[in-house]
Amino acid sequence: MKQAKIRVGLVQHHYSHDAEYNRNRNYTAIETLAAMGADLVVLSELHDTTYFCQAENVDNFDIAHGVDEDNEVIGLYRRYAKINNIVLVTSFFERRAAGMYHNTAVVIDRDGSIAGRYRKMHIPDDPAYYEKFYFTPGDLGFEPIETSIGRLGVCVCWDQWYPEAARIMALRGADILIYPTAIGWESTDALSEKERQLDAWITVQRGHAVANGLPVVAVNRVGYESDPSGVTNGITFWGSSFVAGPQGEFLHKSSCDTEDTPLVEVDMGRVEQVRRWWPFLRDRRIDEYGPILKRFLD
Amino acid sequence: MKQAKIRVGLVQHHYSHDAEYNRNRNYTAIETLAAMGADLVVLSELHDTTYFCQAENVDNFDIAHGVDEDNEVIGLYRRYAKINNIVLVTSFFERRAAGMYHNTAVVIDRDGSIAGRYRKMHIPDDPAYYEKFYFTPGDLGFEPIETSIGRLGVCVCWDQWYPEAARIMALRGADILIYPTAIGWESTDALSEKERQLDAWITVQRGHAVANGLPVVAVNRVGYESDPSGVTNGITFWGSSFVAGPQGEFLHKSSCDTEDTPLVEVDMGRVEQVRRWWPFLRDRRIDEYGPILKRFLD
Repeated sequence: MKQAKIRVGLVQHHYSHDAEYNRNRNYTAIETLAAMGADLVVLSELHDTTYFCQAENVDNFDIAHGVDEDNEVIGLYRRYAKINNIVLVTSFFERRAAGMYHNTAVVIDRDGSIAGRYRKMHIPDDPAYYEKFYFTPGDLGFEPIETSIGRLGVCVCWDQWYPEAARIMALRGADILIYPTAIGWESTDALSEKERQLDAWITVQRGHAVANGLPVVAVNRVGYESDPSGVTNGITFWGSSFVAGPQGEFLHKSSCDTEDTPLVEVDMGRVEQVRRWWPFLRDRRIDEYGPILKRFLD
Repeated sequence: MKQAKIRVGLVQHHYSHDAEYNRNRNYTAIETLAAMGADLVVLSELHDTTYFCQAENVDNFDIAHGVDEDNEVIGLYRRYAKINNIVLVTSFFERRAAGMYHNTAVVIDRDGSIAGRYRKMHIPDDPAYYEKFYFTPGDLGFEPIETSIGRLGVCVCWDQWYPEAARIMALRGADILIYPTAIGWESTDALSEKERQLDAWITVQRGHAVANGLPVVAVNRVGYESDPSGVTNGITFWGSSFVAGPQGEFLHKSSCDTEDTPLVEVDMGRVEQVRRWWPFLRDRRIDEYGPILKRFLD
């Protein structure tokens, strides 16, 4: 922990097919949040584009780009961070080599330098979320990223369902867990099913907060995007970006259907107290966790 | 899965210092739930006594007994199960040898036979919960117990905070996660803190349901028990026993301050459907989970 309190800005936007338009709106949100006092701004997953994984289309690889510091898009976001003196969590479709692409979070520090990268480790593949087609599974492990405001345990979307990812980030000294994400509803599901899905998504991440005694920040996009292939009915991204404290308690929750750019203060000193009361890390049975490394044991 | 639907009876009782009285009341609850159609009845942690771990007192070891099939108390509960034709999850202070005691769940099948035992693996030690004094950490691992109605992933109380325990049970083919527990409030905590604690306890277990696509049953005692040593203000056990489905959705939740013996139907076929939609087990990065076996990595 480097700061007693961190003011986190969340950017819950609807995204269009126009990358420049999306970036300009991201910038406006960053600038506004910084003016309000943000130390950290978190954008949602793949925030420069629509969620192109709704269909498998080789032309979509044209959208990808490098994530080195000299890349043009990265340079843009580096300037966004530096001008506004904030730590910035971004998310890109990374082109690493011909035929090798990743879903990569890039964390930029207040001075515009790249603090670190995280390549999405768990890759989903469900109807309308054809990510295994686009993204090679990450090879950087679950490594929190050291920044001037603390050690950020950044994972991406599907990772959020895996307690292992959160736990390893905690064991490596993360001060906070952060999940840029893009998740929503299929229109034909019943309202009760939609409610269960949204609640499950929130609950499992709040569970990571509790199990690890760490605050959690989840930032999702919002609004409808059609399926360009016409195979599905498209996705209505459910927003509901939230911040939870280290007991899983809500510090903020955005609506499921409107854009929102809230600023939320997180008391980082609370972790110390909560972990004294509930010292879960003290009592872990590491001698008996070997089966975690297996696919299945039946 | 051996039955498409399981009717689970929960016994949320207040317990006295009189073991025989407690057992008789447990029996009445079991009989009532069986008459309502229960397949499975789950008692709370250490259901024959008050929660004696509030103070460190060597005389309390007198309460412990063996958990073999010929033990008198075990025989009693075996008859309870057989007479009522139910699977029964019980919880005892096990005497294994001189100076070696465990906190042990014993699962009894419909025919009165012992289906299996689970010795609490994670042992807490907090003011008013001096369990490390009483209980040797379990050495039976996280092994679900095969019964006539399915494979029961039984853990005990403090285990419920550990995603590793739930995950290993799931990987070993558990059909349902079950947590007998004894947890409550300290009277001097603020209401807001009490609410956070209760909600955290529920949330982390619902999180296990979501992450593993399994139903969860948690059964707690209820009501106030004083601290015989007079050191603390005693514990008000918060009840709130609940059943969640494999998306973490509530199927039942008891009140925090009254006894309750609800019967809850769990659709075991739902697991198959939920895991098709959200195939988390498919995408686990077992190649990168090694750090889980470490104490800390900072």
